[in-house]
Amino acid sequence: VLDAAAASPGRGRLVWTIDEQVEGTHFRRDLASWSDVGWRSFMAAASDVAAMGAVPWAALSALVVPDDVDDAALEALAAGQRAAAEAIGAAVVGGNLARGPVLSVATTLLGTCEDPVLRSGARPGDTVWLAGRVGLAAAGLRALEAGGSPSSTLSAAIEAWRRPRALVDEGRAMRPLAHAAIDVSDGLAGDAGHIGEASGVQIVFDAAALLEDDVLGAAARALGADAIDLALDGGEDYALVVAGPVAIAGFRRIGHVTEGRGVALRDVSGSTRPLASRGYDHFTSRKPTAASRS
Amino acid sequence: VLDAAAASPGRGRLVWTIDEQVEGTHFRRDLASWSDVGWRSFMAAASDVAAMGAVPWAALSALVVPDDVDDAALEALAAGQRAAAEAIGAAVVGGNLARGPVLSVATTLLGTCEDPVLRSGARPGDTVWLAGRVGLAAAGLRALEAGGSPSSTLSAAIEAWRRPRALVDEGRAMRPLAHAAIDVSDGLAGDAGHIGEASGVQIVFDAAALLEDDVLGAAARALGADAIDLALDGGEDYALVVAGPVAIAGFRRIGHVTEGRGVALRDVSGSTRPLASRGYDHFTSRKPTAASRS
Repeated sequence: VLDAAAASPGRGRLVWTIDEQVEGTHFRRDLASWSDVGWRSFMAAASDVAAMGAVPWAALSALVVPDDVDDAALEALAAGQRAAAEAIGAAVVGGNLARGPVLSVATTLLGTCEDPVLRSGARPGDTVWLAGRVGLAAAGLRALEAGGSPSSTLSAAIEAWRRPRALVDEGRAMRPLAHAAIDVSDGLAGDAGHIGEASGVQIVFDAAALLEDDVLGAAARALGADAIDLALDGGEDYALVVAGPVAIAGFRRIGHVTEGRGVALRDVSGSTRPLASRGYDHFTSRKPTAASRS
Repeated sequence: VLDAAAASPGRGRLVWTIDEQVEGTHFRRDLASWSDVGWRSFMAAASDVAAMGAVPWAALSALVVPDDVDDAALEALAAGQRAAAEAIGAAVVGGNLARGPVLSVATTLLGTCEDPVLRSGARPGDTVWLAGRVGLAAAGLRALEAGGSPSSTLSAAIEAWRRPRALVDEGRAMRPLAHAAIDVSDGLAGDAGHIGEASGVQIVFDAAALLEDDVLGAAARALGADAIDLALDGGEDYALVVAGPVAIAGFRRIGHVTEGRGVALRDVSGSTRPLASRGYDHFTSRKPTAASRS
């Protein structure tokens, strides 16, 4: 593994991110293959870059590896990282390997962008747009945690959790049109709340729009779960949420921006109530306080 | 903590590195302050950049934080990172925070350089040059592990372990003159061995030259340790080792490059013997196999 890489950037400004996935917090060996662990950790970092409208370019990873992880497992993990990088046109160019008692995968990614979209530009009157799904990965995780043989209804949800995809093309499409954007890693309500905080506005979701996802609805029914709760609180889908004035190809409307603070939900009857701040528990067995920010 | 930073690079090519320090492998809370943990982890990453002759520019860090680390500890750690960054003219511009059972600090650093020095250019006939000290940080760690009140003879060694400094100025000085370079994080013999491997040559150290460090000699005597063993195997000083044809300001001669493979030591009697491959145990209580590469 290389310690450092000499490189030349592409055109535009640099966008740079780091993300880390920790065994027990973000993945479990019994629920994901080694390749899945590599893939997911890469896409989590790439999604940060996509959410700025930037093009991922190159990555380094830092692995902390316990003694019980053998070389074949490490190679499978690295293959998952490489496959994820290739899927979005980037490359893993080096990294670092350290021994430690708990497996973790830190990924740092450089991208380039003419004019990155930040979280802070949302304005009252903007529409809230979504690309990708929300809640499906959380449904897949619940199905995996429940064990047994999940029904075919849940296979899309399980795939969403194991093999999320950073929405790079959608990020490029929204960049010239968006006032603010974020990716959904910890849950739609919480992550859109970051746009609200940074922009000094309130984000209002439209429950009817969130319920238009038939695949999520079917997964929720199969799990006996509430689709709205999954949509608002489920993390790790790496959907993109954008505030902006005009429609964007590949995005659908899920709400609007108003004066105020925080996040609210307009239910199907048309009444609006504020949503309490809440985070995504990557594993339902974890204490909410410990997993509320990842 | 920011997830991503929009930035513009300086002139020259980009040099990029990632390093990670893990509690129990690279530091212990009872031996280092929170500020020391932040400082050391930053300097470990910066040293990789210094070893290429590059100028550190900006950093992101990813922290994995157990529940028993409070906000005051985190702030002290971050202050140590910032102080280290300022000491070498760089800045920490963002990062990521994740929950997990074991504290770790990953640091990714970007630097710029006209023409980075790699490990692969050493040639038979080159001299081996050293900037900074080797073995002193390992002596300091041994003194701390022994507990009690270390003698004043060992205070420089303890400071070397707690507050190492990446040799950025020395790296810039060697860049136009060096054929190959590396920083000493895991021990002089092992790290110089990486130059040997990458360059297809043998590195021969001169024991008499290594013994010229009076501070190391005094620390070794105070510990009842062998100064040569400390110099060859002690890690975490972040000295720079360079192979090149001419003297470099700030560097002293410690050996030479010959045809062959591996690493050898010419003892004070003038006879030369090969050194077995060996790594640095960050803590003497760890199994050598687990700590041989960090």
